[in-house]
Amino acid sequence: MRGYSMERDDYLKRLKRIEGQVRGIQRMVEEDVYCIDILTQISAINKAMQSVAVGLLNEHLHHCVANAMTEGDAGEIDKKIAEATAAIERLVKS
Amino acid sequence: MRGYSMERDDYLKRLKRIEGQVRGIQRMVEEDVYCIDILTQISAINKAMQSVAVGLLNEHLHHCVANAMTEGDAGEIDKKIAEATAAIERLVKS
Amino acid sequence: MRGYSMERDDYLKRLKRIEGQVRGIQRMVEEDVYCIDILTQISAINKAMQSVAVGLLNEHLHHCVANAMTEGDAGEIDKKIAEATAAIERLVKS
Amino acid sequence: MRGYSMERDDYLKRLKRIEGQVRGIQRMVEEDVYCIDILTQISAINKAMQSVAVGLLNEHLHHCVANAMTEGDAGEIDKKIAEATAAIERLVKS
Repeated sequence: MRGYSMERDDYLKRLKRIEGQVRGIQRMVEEDVYCIDILTQISAINKAMQSVAVGLLNEHLHHCVANAMTEGDAGEIDKKIAEATAAIERLVKS
Repeated sequence: MRGYSMERDDYLKRLKRIEGQVRGIQRMVEEDVYCIDILTQISAINKAMQSVAVGLLNEHLHHCVANAMTEGDAGEIDKKIAEATAAIERLVKS
Repeated sequence: MRGYSMERDDYLKRLKRIEGQVRGIQRMVEEDVYCIDILTQISAINKAMQSVAVGLLNEHLHHCVANAMTEGDAGEIDKKIAEATAAIERLVKS
Repeated sequence: MRGYSMERDDYLKRLKRIEGQVRGIQRMVEEDVYCIDILTQISAINKAMQSVAVGLLNEHLHHCVANAMTEGDAGEIDKKIAEATAAIERLVKS
């Protein structure tokens, strides 16, 4: 179990919607839609993507803590938190 | 002409690639891939999307200035710049 | 005239407030305030800073377009827009 | 202990530097420095601030996990992770 299996369908539904929005932008570019409207749509995709990322991160943190409590391997836990922090940093900067 | 028509094929190619990356994330979720690897992939999509947005914005600004020089309608120009600024603000906050 | 001189006092007031908020965070760290409350304060500073940046950018774009209309030096205009785009890109990525 | 006390001096040093950078921007505005140079400086401050935020978050997560292991109060842990996730979301969106 990776920690996000329970809500997998919810994530897939949101990712399908994002995929559709990216295709929508392709259509907008093909049809020469006004640039500002395309930028608005890109901002909406960014927000939807961030929301997926924050959801995954939340479950990952729960999973890490649950693991820490049952296994308690300090070295492994440090590694996991360093990994999570690096992922957060990439998200904040992207 | 919307200002980005000349490089339309380049934008479409990049958006197709982003669409493929979003589908890749769906596969990762279905296959229970490690959460941190999915987050890394999401950060890559965000960066690719921002790069498309900045490209579109650049061409839009060129277009606005070119229009300003040939038509010189001050009210129209103010409206365009306000619109571009609002789009930049949405991008910076998304 | 750099394009933002008219509202200079407004910018200075907002920057003074941001400076005070940064000092506030120093106090919070010194007094061992709860980490999450410090992070909330940092997010508020980021938003205030972005708002200053978007304001400056808006005036800069107005200024560029106004210059383009009176001087109309195409090479100079291209340079200005490239510069503004690069600044936007740094903001979006920071 | 709030989890970041050990490196408190490091945080204070970085926050002092950020405070100085904010004052630097005030001087730039007063002296009518070129707008793009001010924006570059704002991007640098944003990055420095994010780096402080990610550092605090990292220590907070370590602290939460350490607490979870010694105290193991599931309700309390859920609350902490929800709180940390909300802070991450605010940072990603700011």
